[in-house]
Amino acid sequence: MTKRVFNFYAGPATLPLPALERAQKELLNFAGTGMSILEISHRSKEYDKVHNDATELVRELMEIPNEYKVLWLQGGASTQFFMAPVNLQMPGRPMQYVDTGTWSSKALKEARLYGDVEVVASSKDDNYSYVPRGVTFSENAAFAHITSNNTIYGTQWQEWPDVPDSVPLVCDMSSDLLARRIKVKDFGVIYAGAQKNLGPAGVTLVVVREDLIDRVPDDVPTLMKWKTEVEKNSLFHTPPCFAIYICKLALEYWKEFGGITKIEKQNQEKAKILYDVIDSSDSFYRGYARPDSRSLMNVTFTMESSDLEAKAVAEGIERDLVGLKGHRSVGGMRASIYNAMPLEGVKKLSSFLTEFKEKNQ
Amino acid sequence: MTKRVFNFYAGPATLPLPALERAQKELLNFAGTGMSILEISHRSKEYDKVHNDATELVRELMEIPNEYKVLWLQGGASTQFFMAPVNLQMPGRPMQYVDTGTWSSKALKEARLYGDVEVVASSKDDNYSYVPRGVTFSENAAFAHITSNNTIYGTQWQEWPDVPDSVPLVCDMSSDLLARRIKVKDFGVIYAGAQKNLGPAGVTLVVVREDLIDRVPDDVPTLMKWKTEVEKNSLFHTPPCFAIYICKLALEYWKEFGGITKIEKQNQEKAKILYDVIDSSDSFYRGYARPDSRSLMNVTFTMESSDLEAKAVAEGIERDLVGLKGHRSVGGMRASIYNAMPLEGVKKLSSFLTEFKEKNQ
Repeated sequence: MTKRVFNFYAGPATLPLPALERAQKELLNFAGTGMSILEISHRSKEYDKVHNDATELVRELMEIPNEYKVLWLQGGASTQFFMAPVNLQMPGRPMQYVDTGTWSSKALKEARLYGDVEVVASSKDDNYSYVPRGVTFSENAAFAHITSNNTIYGTQWQEWPDVPDSVPLVCDMSSDLLARRIKVKDFGVIYAGAQKNLGPAGVTLVVVREDLIDRVPDDVPTLMKWKTEVEKNSLFHTPPCFAIYICKLALEYWKEFGGITKIEKQNQEKAKILYDVIDSSDSFYRGYARPDSRSLMNVTFTMESSDLEAKAVAEGIERDLVGLKGHRSVGGMRASIYNAMPLEGVKKLSSFLTEFKEKNQ
Repeated sequence: MTKRVFNFYAGPATLPLPALERAQKELLNFAGTGMSILEISHRSKEYDKVHNDATELVRELMEIPNEYKVLWLQGGASTQFFMAPVNLQMPGRPMQYVDTGTWSSKALKEARLYGDVEVVASSKDDNYSYVPRGVTFSENAAFAHITSNNTIYGTQWQEWPDVPDSVPLVCDMSSDLLARRIKVKDFGVIYAGAQKNLGPAGVTLVVVREDLIDRVPDDVPTLMKWKTEVEKNSLFHTPPCFAIYICKLALEYWKEFGGITKIEKQNQEKAKILYDVIDSSDSFYRGYARPDSRSLMNVTFTMESSDLEAKAVAEGIERDLVGLKGHRSVGGMRASIYNAMPLEGVKKLSSFLTEFKEKNQ
């Protein structure tokens, strides 16, 4: 039996085991072609099916309306940090951002190259331990930008902000894509690096409302325009075929699992188990995020001393619970429990944390 | 036994079988971690070793001098088409390109967004069937740009052009990287999408002389500056870990095989076998590229009629010789025989072509 651990890393992150097993099985001979999916032409009918199946599965699971286009791009969310303003800027109209942490800050820094950026709300005052409430955006904003889940701090938007009808809401959903039901119509653009909830590193999903692709100025490089890949079904040039293929296998798994309603239910259950351990620990474990902003994806907490935290991380590894060290911006511990983390892994972590507290309090 | 065919596609292309077998074997449990390489954190020590080993292997095989930096990026060569001018433009100084086909044309089109582009030589007059000779570049050029091998037409630079010392030669080497010995010092920048001679689609190798990374203007997105990833060892953000891992496995195979001297020798042998079939066929097969510009990587040829060509492509597939249809810009047939195409595959193709001629002439 192959050794497998429970992987709580913030990303790249754990993937559904049946998807990996399928990939392993057919790695030397994909779909009877006698070629690996790593070797097959992106213009072949076999790859074409993978590509289109992946798109259809995303559309189905996310219930994406027809007027939205699905793109498979490269360069991670970090590339969308500048592609969003490149594609959506409107001269004389501000780009309005909510700053909920490192990734929001990086996104708005890139936007400043393309015009006026207004930070309409920020939780920097308390080291990003919460998501601002009651945020408003202007009617004349070119777009509004939020980061739906903040991996480092373990915070997540619980309710989407009100945005004027004229203003497209752009959302970096890298760390909670497919984790809960959303209405795609609430957004103008959704983008996500795949390596947390969707698939492996190396591919980025972009969902864009069709009317927004025409804003882009002409004098922009071909591949920086969403329009280019919309018109070519993400095949303008060679896509990251293997990463898209793994996304497809994972999406098939999630469809079979019961879709987003079921995923969301399990995510709530998993998160509750860990937050309950924290909340019932008499401050042995101290939740980092404010309760009203807690993430279903990244559970962040600290202890009395960094020595104790290091001890817990080390003892976790001994029990095959890996990747629990918190980000340096927050310290402590972080359990990233994306869609593909099984309930069993969370239960095992919960038992370990309870036991660790008993021995060390 | 797993079915395997000989894959003559132009790219993504065939990979060394031992590299694929290794990837398959350890797909569920990488380096004893209990995680797939698809799931492991890019900040883990296990991934770090993969990343640095891949870089060291490229440095060793290509004999890259210390003053050059090796980058693993995303977005394919098509992204370098604009990143090269973004990083190397110098106001008032022309960017000089040689146009040897579709990919050169696409590259220079992107450069036009950043300043004056001069096409100093072109083979468009004869549908790119040759590589221009005696090309010269100006002393005041910001840079000179060539495409070393032209997959569509089956042409390849046999001797590098003379470039003034002050002018960095930038080369798109996507389709003949590692295929023959080169002196890296002859170039300022080499870039290559991995999916022909190096690894799978989804990662781009950039080799850049260190002094050139400081030319880039400040007001450029962070990830469009080579400097960003030079300073972070290509780990500024999540890299395409799996694609780099496959490159590493392939590079290990090539090192074991005997390095570039041995690869080049085999490539010459393979190409000679096919060009000999063409040249001795009494014009049954008609080489597309002029003999002095013939590519070692892509052997392009036509026949008397497109019906005959279609018949040959179809009969090839029946014998497990796949991907032989020529690109629509040239028609006919194309055998892409990158490094990982075994000699055995070329011999089988040669026998088939000889037999096909005998039956159909």
